[in-house]
Amino acid sequence: MPYRAVVVGASGYSGAELLRLLAGHPAIEVSAATSREFAGADIATVYPNLAAYAGRSFVALDEADLEAADIVFLALPHGASMAVGAPLAAAGGRIVDFSADFRLADAGLYRTWYGAEHSAPEWLGKWVYGLPELHRDQIRGAALVANPGCYPTAATLALAPLLAAGLIEPAGITIAASSGVSGAGRGMNAGVHFSHVDASVKAYGLGTHKHTPEIEQELSIAAGAATTVTFVPHLVPTARGLLATCVARLAAGATAASVRDAVAERYAGEPFVRATPSPPETKYVSGSNGAHVHATADERTGAAIVVCAIDNLGKGAAGQALQNANLMLGLDETAGLTAGGIYP
Amino acid sequence: MPYRAVVVGASGYSGAELLRLLAGHPAIEVSAATSREFAGADIATVYPNLAAYAGRSFVALDEADLEAADIVFLALPHGASMAVGAPLAAAGGRIVDFSADFRLADAGLYRTWYGAEHSAPEWLGKWVYGLPELHRDQIRGAALVANPGCYPTAATLALAPLLAAGLIEPAGITIAASSGVSGAGRGMNAGVHFSHVDASVKAYGLGTHKHTPEIEQELSIAAGAATTVTFVPHLVPTARGLLATCVARLAAGATAASVRDAVAERYAGEPFVRATPSPPETKYVSGSNGAHVHATADERTGAAIVVCAIDNLGKGAAGQALQNANLMLGLDETAGLTAGGIYP
Amino acid sequence: MPYRAVVVGASGYSGAELLRLLAGHPAIEVSAATSREFAGADIATVYPNLAAYAGRSFVALDEADLEAADIVFLALPHGASMAVGAPLAAAGGRIVDFSADFRLADAGLYRTWYGAEHSAPEWLGKWVYGLPELHRDQIRGAALVANPGCYPTAATLALAPLLAAGLIEPAGITIAASSGVSGAGRGMNAGVHFSHVDASVKAYGLGTHKHTPEIEQELSIAAGAATTVTFVPHLVPTARGLLATCVARLAAGATAASVRDAVAERYAGEPFVRATPSPPETKYVSGSNGAHVHATADERTGAAIVVCAIDNLGKGAAGQALQNANLMLGLDETAGLTAGGIYP
Amino acid sequence: MPYRAVVVGASGYSGAELLRLLAGHPAIEVSAATSREFAGADIATVYPNLAAYAGRSFVALDEADLEAADIVFLALPHGASMAVGAPLAAAGGRIVDFSADFRLADAGLYRTWYGAEHSAPEWLGKWVYGLPELHRDQIRGAALVANPGCYPTAATLALAPLLAAGLIEPAGITIAASSGVSGAGRGMNAGVHFSHVDASVKAYGLGTHKHTPEIEQELSIAAGAATTVTFVPHLVPTARGLLATCVARLAAGATAASVRDAVAERYAGEPFVRATPSPPETKYVSGSNGAHVHATADERTGAAIVVCAIDNLGKGAAGQALQNANLMLGLDETAGLTAGGIYP
Repeated sequence: MPYRAVVVGASGYSGAELLRLLAGHPAIEVSAATSREFAGADIATVYPNLAAYAGRSFVALDEADLEAADIVFLALPHGASMAVGAPLAAAGGRIVDFSADFRLADAGLYRTWYGAEHSAPEWLGKWVYGLPELHRDQIRGAALVANPGCYPTAATLALAPLLAAGLIEPAGITIAASSGVSGAGRGMNAGVHFSHVDASVKAYGLGTHKHTPEIEQELSIAAGAATTVTFVPHLVPTARGLLATCVARLAAGATAASVRDAVAERYAGEPFVRATPSPPETKYVSGSNGAHVHATADERTGAAIVVCAIDNLGKGAAGQALQNANLMLGLDETAGLTAGGIYP
Repeated sequence: MPYRAVVVGASGYSGAELLRLLAGHPAIEVSAATSREFAGADIATVYPNLAAYAGRSFVALDEADLEAADIVFLALPHGASMAVGAPLAAAGGRIVDFSADFRLADAGLYRTWYGAEHSAPEWLGKWVYGLPELHRDQIRGAALVANPGCYPTAATLALAPLLAAGLIEPAGITIAASSGVSGAGRGMNAGVHFSHVDASVKAYGLGTHKHTPEIEQELSIAAGAATTVTFVPHLVPTARGLLATCVARLAAGATAASVRDAVAERYAGEPFVRATPSPPETKYVSGSNGAHVHATADERTGAAIVVCAIDNLGKGAAGQALQNANLMLGLDETAGLTAGGIYP
Repeated sequence: MPYRAVVVGASGYSGAELLRLLAGHPAIEVSAATSREFAGADIATVYPNLAAYAGRSFVALDEADLEAADIVFLALPHGASMAVGAPLAAAGGRIVDFSADFRLADAGLYRTWYGAEHSAPEWLGKWVYGLPELHRDQIRGAALVANPGCYPTAATLALAPLLAAGLIEPAGITIAASSGVSGAGRGMNAGVHFSHVDASVKAYGLGTHKHTPEIEQELSIAAGAATTVTFVPHLVPTARGLLATCVARLAAGATAASVRDAVAERYAGEPFVRATPSPPETKYVSGSNGAHVHATADERTGAAIVVCAIDNLGKGAAGQALQNANLMLGLDETAGLTAGGIYP
Repeated sequence: MPYRAVVVGASGYSGAELLRLLAGHPAIEVSAATSREFAGADIATVYPNLAAYAGRSFVALDEADLEAADIVFLALPHGASMAVGAPLAAAGGRIVDFSADFRLADAGLYRTWYGAEHSAPEWLGKWVYGLPELHRDQIRGAALVANPGCYPTAATLALAPLLAAGLIEPAGITIAASSGVSGAGRGMNAGVHFSHVDASVKAYGLGTHKHTPEIEQELSIAAGAATTVTFVPHLVPTARGLLATCVARLAAGATAASVRDAVAERYAGEPFVRATPSPPETKYVSGSNGAHVHATADERTGAAIVVCAIDNLGKGAAGQALQNANLMLGLDETAGLTAGGIYP
């Protein structure tokens, strides 16, 4: 009998992507998909791509029996998630949370970067940070998993192996990352108007993006030392796709070859992360849970350069959430996630 | 034991898309993938999205044992396919041919529209035209199937139900269709340079596109009367996606409601074709084998308007080829084809 | 001393494009640019591309002295324009109106297609329809000009020469047109979200688009007989660009050569309209006031095919408005409009 | 009487963009436009956007009288340009060279980065580097100007003011830049196929791009000290537009406010460079000669962040070449370059 999943906030881009993936999952079925905006509407009418859900409707949150679910995916915005997640956690629920609400172990960092008090600080530090390539053993069998942000996923996959191996310095790291527009969600504002975004590229949130402390938390763990990053995200005219370009100082003795090899060895057995012989392109992982990483160095300037490509809605959100759920439920980690990227 | 498939011409866009689909197929495995250009190269290096094929290489055509295959997919250009397909057919092979070489029953039409003599005219009329929604019974168990062109798939799905029901006139049909650039294949020419195509739209092949006789052949069968179409294809700045907008004269008594209902009833039980309540958008079927059809009428001018959206590489090529193969092999028609469209 | 122009509704896409063009005009200066949303804001901050206006602010409508202007451009939405345009016309103003409010001569048609009563029906028929290639003599020196819609501009330029020459039948015309997203204006709705529009194409307003009666009005004049069209607009993933593909029945004796020649001769002396030897591409006229027209026929089916490409914000809106203003003011018709299209 | 210009290599993207700009120039006329590929073909047929050149043809290089020209623009590839430029320089010609052939003062650097011996090393150091905002006085009246590369233009405009003011350290600079596809030129290769580029982003040339020594040369001059940069270019799915994101260590005492002010003051009087209050977007300068620069700091990590947006074909190539020509000829620096960016 399949596991029953509830997807809360299923009409956002990440939630709908999870519905798409779950439609092909061999061991999990969707018992309810909630949406505040579209409760009562046929799922396949709101998202005509989700033909597998024709005849089923989104429901309101209070119509979904979260406690009866084997797993609950919370695909809610930051701030809204903790209000649902904290009581459900207290009730013993098994949860993958897409928001940032339970990612940071430190309530002070939450306050600083999110500009608000955390309403359930007692839960911080009790959720596992759901990046399986770093924390697989803890995720396996865990009940509470905080699914990483899209930028932190790419940046951490790129840099953690080199920090762990002592091949780069933990100070002076620069991360310039580019994301497709779906990363900003389904909400409307002038910044996502097609006529504005098309044929344009911009940087935003220079040094102030909320994903920064999350990146630093994970890199510091990997490095075993406090690590800070200067993070500059960019918006590029694609719907999906995220590329993180990371530049760090080479440690003494490190070379282009040693950083390349360290990444290749680190990910040799991973089902979703591949070390690629040339710099990755986001299109090759589009629609998939894949992450492509390429590491080299500019030995002339003493800089390691590591680039990681993911689909922000795949490995950067719904794909990774499902990977976490598979681990939590004791299923094959790749179940429902074997599809290759859509190319061209 | 799974069926063994050979994909000939597997490094073109349609062939590579078929590889992607076959990687997730429960009952067919790829025994060889041929490529003239990339023979010897690792498939996952040439197409990094095809991670499932890492460690396997494209092979030259003469290295592939076509006769030992349970099914051969010929994803070769027009003209090249008949040279492989005719002898293999004579040897009793089970073949799905992606090219136009065996689609037309009339060698004279081939000569007129393709500007060359057919080299194996004795085989014309012996291949089933592989549009399952029209010819399912013939395809089931057939050995030789000619996979339809992308434009003919969309145009025929749009118009055949109305012609069959006598709701539109077979004369004076206009088809204005738009295709993504992948429809032109992987080959390079100035017309597919990103800087040229991006932010632009054009019509081409006005009244002269090679898909015209194929559309007319199928519509004539559906109508039970000679049917001609004025066909104007367009190129739009997307990689995938094909939309056919068809305008025809309403037959006496036909209305917006009757054409809408006729299409809805015709496709009620179909696994891949959906009658949609509003005009379809190609993105909703991107990466899938779906076809979305919407029919209405401008009663003021006496015109039926039917619009059909497909992915030119999905239902317009590789998806439909796999649907045909499933039928030919006696498998579940939807095997390996259940993924929803990638949205956004 | 330059003419003083007021641009009302200058912060919409069409208004802002007019500001861009007027910045380079040798004989017209902008005395005021009004905006409800941005009154008080620096123009070059709202539109950083309009660097020439740095230091000048948008003003509220009641702060602009319309009556002191030599010419007023009303770039307001349908319905809103008549409320400003009617009293200003009564006061003797010289006006180019971008909206549909004064384009139709028949108040009944306005009611039918716009779903509302016209508030100033006494003015209908007193404005010149501002398509210079058809009505240049009337526009020259006129005080009141209704600037055509984007689709009607392209469709009329394509078809009027053939109707006037009796080379096509006035019945049974089909127009399938594609527009960039800027044609829908700056307003936000789910349909213009980048993630929704990108990599997708759709038809909309099947047979019901408000531009239909305007097209028919002008084609009927050209034909000297009632002309109806089945009009199907499409949205394609570009910011700018509009392509109208028109299919009509050839009149007896008409051929591909005769329709090609008729269009070439008709536009031989025109400064902005060119008959092109191959089907036009919208990118070549992007940012310009150009229109490229290509006419041919599918003699096999008896259909003329005419394709016209414009920039919906150029010849389809602001460019044409300025062309009209030049004629009204007795200036060189091409003043401020000589820039070539932006390619690539 | 206007100055006579010859554009050599006028059918490439940069050359054609220069033709577009020159068509509107008040004091320069094009006496010849050469093209190896299109000699003899009508300019407006090859580039239908260049309607102003209808009736004029591209000519072969040996048909153009370079020595009779008042100014020659060499829009040839690297390597090819020196063969034309060196003898013409010796003959006393006035030249703006688009290639890299005369940008570097050091033949050794040329050999290292371009992988070939320079064929006219005696000319190195005798051409002025044509970035007017840094070298205006030398360009004014100069005969030989090497027009900067697109990336160096943006990176140097971003960083030079801060290096000159001592607000950032000359060591440890990272430049992550994104370019539209037209930057790669009109030539065809798999990397510019629309289906490959669309909806994708990638990094390339990690630490090895040929523009690196040019950036370092100019930044070293500005800093008055040897300056090295780790440079990572990216390709984004737009035709035009280039964004350079530069991260450098703040010098002692420098702050977000001081770097912002330094850039604002530096460019206060410049006609084409604007310090913007928020991070720039490439669309706002598309089609123009504008450069938008935004400087701030992540004081937490001690990093200055400076972002510069240009049109790679405008300020990054043809626009800047014309700005240089205006200075060389003693004309108004902005002649022919006043058009605002095309938005949306």
